[in-house]
Amino acid sequence: MKVIVPFKPINPKSRLGNVLNSDEREEFAKLMLLDVLKVLRESGLEVKVITTSKIDVGVDAEIVEDNRELDECINAELIEVPKAVVMSDLPLLNLETIERFFEMKEDVIIAPGRKGGTNMLAVRRKGFKVSYHYCSFLKHVSTARSLGYSYRIFDSFYASIDIDTEDDILELMIHGEGKLSRSFLNRIGFHIEMAKVPKLVRYVKYSRF
Amino acid sequence: MKVIVPFKPINPKSRLGNVLNSDEREEFAKLMLLDVLKVLRESGLEVKVITTSKIDVGVDAEIVEDNRELDECINAELIEVPKAVVMSDLPLLNLETIERFFEMKEDVIIAPGRKGGTNMLAVRRKGFKVSYHYCSFLKHVSTARSLGYSYRIFDSFYASIDIDTEDDILELMIHGEGKLSRSFLNRIGFHIEMAKVPKLVRYVKYSRF
Repeated sequence: MKVIVPFKPINPKSRLGNVLNSDEREEFAKLMLLDVLKVLRESGLEVKVITTSKIDVGVDAEIVEDNRELDECINAELIEVPKAVVMSDLPLLNLETIERFFEMKEDVIIAPGRKGGTNMLAVRRKGFKVSYHYCSFLKHVSTARSLGYSYRIFDSFYASIDIDTEDDILELMIHGEGKLSRSFLNRIGFHIEMAKVPKLVRYVKYSRF
Repeated sequence: MKVIVPFKPINPKSRLGNVLNSDEREEFAKLMLLDVLKVLRESGLEVKVITTSKIDVGVDAEIVEDNRELDECINAELIEVPKAVVMSDLPLLNLETIERFFEMKEDVIIAPGRKGGTNMLAVRRKGFKVSYHYCSFLKHVSTARSLGYSYRIFDSFYASIDIDTEDDILELMIHGEGKLSRSFLNRIGFHIEMAKVPKLVRYVKYSRF
């Protein structure tokens, strides 16, 4: 199955602005994309990255520039099925999780993120339309039901963690051993402080001035 | 495998004090326990609830009062293996998730919660000791490694959602169709407001005065 990975290289992850500067956010977003592409390619999947502006990732994947809104892009892709959509900010995905996801046979498979997100989606029948805002998870379930398509919720912790906030970064620090994006965070001074509830902290290792 | 479910009936879920009063928190905690016990019993597992004070749940499970600290209680239980520990605040657990968990064959199976928690644990060899505070997930992985035991991380979204905060309640509202604890929240006025990022809101349906 062909997998679409949407990507926004310019000013990504603005909610991390308190802990990462603009250059760091761009580098971090790109390394998360690489973590995702790596595991998809290792699973033998064909990958197409749809990016809002030019990128160079050095991975064996089709790269297409497209400035349309996310929903419009993806719905254009879903004219041809089967197809999957995997978000670029899921660095904790591993081979086992991806293989379990693609083994499922229902018409529509939805991997939820927190707060009603849809982090991964597989669609095997024509006519399904995505809508990624305002609790997309419930909307996608409702769309599958109203079309009479079989659907399944994919139960995965790793797929549920899209990195948007400091709390999400903490998850990457705890669970992300071996990931490029986690190594980058380590390199720029992040670590876990073992408080009663573990906390994300950042050492400024070298003065920038 | 025998499953231990620790429970604290008095003043539970204090971090929900902003959205639930003390009586509501007690009722809510008990209904979450019932949601968990229901799915464990449906899976045919033998269940022992260890509670800090007397409860009446009306479910076919052994109920034992024990006022020791959590770690001490569980480590006493782990003298006899195999044994599992499932937290009582995981109302999103379903039959499929529980069955997938208990099918795994490693010496130690850990289902992570957010912020380094250990939400479910299965132990098949003697000598493993739990430590539930200060990023228990990393400590349990490290204990399994140092004992030379095989271990596996159980990848589940539903098992990862222990209900401690308002954000967690939002997850129960989105994903908890059919759960006793979710019905209770509906009954006392909670619903999801479909903002760009969905929000938890509570209608006060009837004045209490």
